[in-house]
Amino acid sequence: MSRVSTKTSLGLTSHAADVTLRFVGEDVVSGGVRQRRFDVDCDGRTVPGNLWTPDGGGGGGSSPLVLIGHGAGTSKSEPYVVSLARRFVRHHGYSALALDGPLHGDRRRDGGGFAISFVEFAQAWANEPHLIDNSIAEWSATLDALAALPEMRTGPVGYWGLSMGTILGLPLVAAEPRIKAAVLGLMGITGPTKARHADDAVKVTVPVLFLVQWDDELFARDTSFALFDALGSPDKRLHAGPGAHSALSREEFEDTERFLAHHLGPAVGR
Amino acid sequence: MSRVSTKTSLGLTSHAADVTLRFVGEDVVSGGVRQRRFDVDCDGRTVPGNLWTPDGGGGGGSSPLVLIGHGAGTSKSEPYVVSLARRFVRHHGYSALALDGPLHGDRRRDGGGFAISFVEFAQAWANEPHLIDNSIAEWSATLDALAALPEMRTGPVGYWGLSMGTILGLPLVAAEPRIKAAVLGLMGITGPTKARHADDAVKVTVPVLFLVQWDDELFARDTSFALFDALGSPDKRLHAGPGAHSALSREEFEDTERFLAHHLGPAVGR
Repeated sequence: MSRVSTKTSLGLTSHAADVTLRFVGEDVVSGGVRQRRFDVDCDGRTVPGNLWTPDGGGGGGSSPLVLIGHGAGTSKSEPYVVSLARRFVRHHGYSALALDGPLHGDRRRDGGGFAISFVEFAQAWANEPHLIDNSIAEWSATLDALAALPEMRTGPVGYWGLSMGTILGLPLVAAEPRIKAAVLGLMGITGPTKARHADDAVKVTVPVLFLVQWDDELFARDTSFALFDALGSPDKRLHAGPGAHSALSREEFEDTERFLAHHLGPAVGR
Repeated sequence: MSRVSTKTSLGLTSHAADVTLRFVGEDVVSGGVRQRRFDVDCDGRTVPGNLWTPDGGGGGGSSPLVLIGHGAGTSKSEPYVVSLARRFVRHHGYSALALDGPLHGDRRRDGGGFAISFVEFAQAWANEPHLIDNSIAEWSATLDALAALPEMRTGPVGYWGLSMGTILGLPLVAAEPRIKAAVLGLMGITGPTKARHADDAVKVTVPVLFLVQWDDELFARDTSFALFDALGSPDKRLHAGPGAHSALSREEFEDTERFLAHHLGPAVGR
């Protein structure tokens, strides 16, 4: 069991001055990938996360890090999140990181479940004015804490988040200069924070791959096209395919992996 | 210098019963790719084409063939057409084929040039009722003639054509059962044959990668979205990126190559 505490200052928000990150429980090593469960403190909130790194790596050089923001109703440990994280570690020697979103996963005492997390998040999206800024602070605090770990030498950071992962993640990509490329989508300029998203989209300038499900029952595709259109990135591309909101094809997952790997570059000196 | 004449019957149209294909001039061999210039006769029209094959290949097995329909104002020998054809030969062991479109390339006695070919094609698109069906007959006649060549054993056929290559090519993909996958786009449900294209789109059932340029000045993106929406293919995907009609990115060319290679499969027994 590893335990690390770091104290660093947050440059990006005024919400917190100190960050503490604690690894909890036993590491899980499988197929060359080490998965570590951690908690990070941010403004009095305890945020649970998973960190995936190459087993035995992390000695000399630096490696890109991919942040994975899960969708509503799931968690940092959802199979597609774990699978995606492991792809980046195994195929590219990267590190990957997922946090439980607000009202999700281990942030719930009741254990959650899809429906209750989904509904309570939707309510919070409409009613909690600090939801997005709190999430930005949590991701940035986690990046600060990781940067202080002696075994982590993080290169460029990528962000991968669809649906709720874009609701919370697009403003993060707009605000966090360490993020150099992003996969966003399954979300449009609609809903309670549409003005915020329209404004923040313009501030996104890194390369973006934006995914649309043609028959998305939650976000009408014209609102998704509007969000893509608003992105400030000179290098942006949209991929769309048939199917409902959550029916993303395997090929699209592969495209997102290829896209981030192209823009984040190779792991160095592992 | 090679010369082959074939006589075969056209199963798909009533326009012609006999097909003659003649290789003309000297083959050009470069970097493992053999380029052969040919003329094919179809309904009294002489259609010039280029055929690209692996140099020294074509002995035993069969290989996929990619048909390339060029855009208005260019020809079968446009650098991007040649480059694309050579990619399929060099990277995948495929064959590739391009025909001069109506009023283009070697079908013109004046040598053409971008503007005159473009303008005259636009006029013919509006005024020549057999333009599309004639083009279908020419591609099908060429496939028939190639199938009769002793050195060609053609496996699955793919189609690659944007803009004019979709105006003429989408109806071909709808009509020609030998085509198993297609790259289409830079065109929408608009213009003089929009009813024909809306009808034919429904008849397209093979996997399609459809490209959209977000800032296309010739085909407004909502008309392109409507054409993609109308495609009957269960497996279809749309890729869009910023830029004008003809500013397709290198990455998109690479995606189209990957897409066709995925669906047409490996060359066998070369």
